[in-house]
Amino acid sequence: MSGTVEARLAQLGLDVPTAPTPAANYIPWVRTGNLVYIAGQVPMKDGAFRWVGKVGAEWSMDEGKQAAREVALNILSQLKAALDGDLDRVVRAVKLNGFVNCVPDFVHQPAVINGASELMIEVFGDAGRHARSAVGVASLPFGVAVEIDGVFEVR
Amino acid sequence: MSGTVEARLAQLGLDVPTAPTPAANYIPWVRTGNLVYIAGQVPMKDGAFRWVGKVGAEWSMDEGKQAAREVALNILSQLKAALDGDLDRVVRAVKLNGFVNCVPDFVHQPAVINGASELMIEVFGDAGRHARSAVGVASLPFGVAVEIDGVFEVR
Amino acid sequence: MSGTVEARLAQLGLDVPTAPTPAANYIPWVRTGNLVYIAGQVPMKDGAFRWVGKVGAEWSMDEGKQAAREVALNILSQLKAALDGDLDRVVRAVKLNGFVNCVPDFVHQPAVINGASELMIEVFGDAGRHARSAVGVASLPFGVAVEIDGVFEVR
Repeated sequence: MSGTVEARLAQLGLDVPTAPTPAANYIPWVRTGNLVYIAGQVPMKDGAFRWVGKVGAEWSMDEGKQAAREVALNILSQLKAALDGDLDRVVRAVKLNGFVNCVPDFVHQPAVINGASELMIEVFGDAGRHARSAVGVASLPFGVAVEIDGVFEVR
Repeated sequence: MSGTVEARLAQLGLDVPTAPTPAANYIPWVRTGNLVYIAGQVPMKDGAFRWVGKVGAEWSMDEGKQAAREVALNILSQLKAALDGDLDRVVRAVKLNGFVNCVPDFVHQPAVINGASELMIEVFGDAGRHARSAVGVASLPFGVAVEIDGVFEVR
Repeated sequence: MSGTVEARLAQLGLDVPTAPTPAANYIPWVRTGNLVYIAGQVPMKDGAFRWVGKVGAEWSMDEGKQAAREVALNILSQLKAALDGDLDRVVRAVKLNGFVNCVPDFVHQPAVINGASELMIEVFGDAGRHARSAVGVASLPFGVAVEIDGVFEVR
């Protein structure tokens, strides 16, 4: 089965980036037993932060969703690093916690975080279906629009 | 022991609702090993959102606590679905994460989330005692006052 | 190996406080399998809340970092209680979730939560390296500047 998920990624035209370096004094993933905990990921590409601004002000709901999709790619990149490059070792996505940097009257956090959830399902199929929380927060690191962390069951 | 928790619910006059459908592209619970992760639940009854508004503005602390109690019932409904209807298979409540949609100077998040914590203890006794976080956030999905997710150990 | 971590704490001049009592109706830690979930800890010393105020207003980034370091000591105190007083039973820090009570335009949550992350590494060495999330929130219990919860693997 090796390479099944990679084939799917190629089919979707998705490029899993090199795992970004943490912004501070922690590590991007920890495995304990069959679970991998992924540190909070933000929209970052080629070392630069992207989607800096608040949803409902600088960014629309749809733009926030796109940011969440990019965050999900970074989650995949960390997961890939945790699994020695083999995403076929993912048993299932367990939980995503989505934080949306938004104005106080923005109430469509679920639609924004869908950008990440949909990517997981596109990539892993039913194994990508996960439990989730989505909340709106006052501010996020470096002013980015979305931060998401997660737990995955792996083999 | 089958039905012990259900008997307790009846004694308390509590009606566990039918598990609400997620508001977006995710699933309401995932089991991995002996843990069940419950997705963020909000106050929702018969398909309608309830307690829309911020604690400290539209709602008082006590009203927020009542909202949290209703959220806890929805957590139980998802847990029941995860356990094929048998809440006696709950070994213990492990962790609740409570998010209170509140004004920036509201500082009684613990009292609000107690509405959920107390329900867990009423229903499961000592097995309902859990670790917990309670924070105040700028906004929540659909404008509801409280969102809570959780982890439970099950058999 | 008994006492290795305690010796390290003494060397660092760190005093792990007596585990604070929860502010509400929950318990400060739960063990399930080899994981200990620590409830959200806040800066509290000798029964009094400390660092009351928002980062970016009442407190600077560096003061927020100091608050996070104090919170980490309270996390250690709860962990110690969970392990019958023996911190050498910590296998590794798995995940910290850091919530910073800050003004909406504050974007250095990672630097603040580093106060906790660095302490974990000082105390446990490589075993203290953890995955992490850091977000900014509108308000925290009792108005404190930082709240952090966590998951640890133990033996």
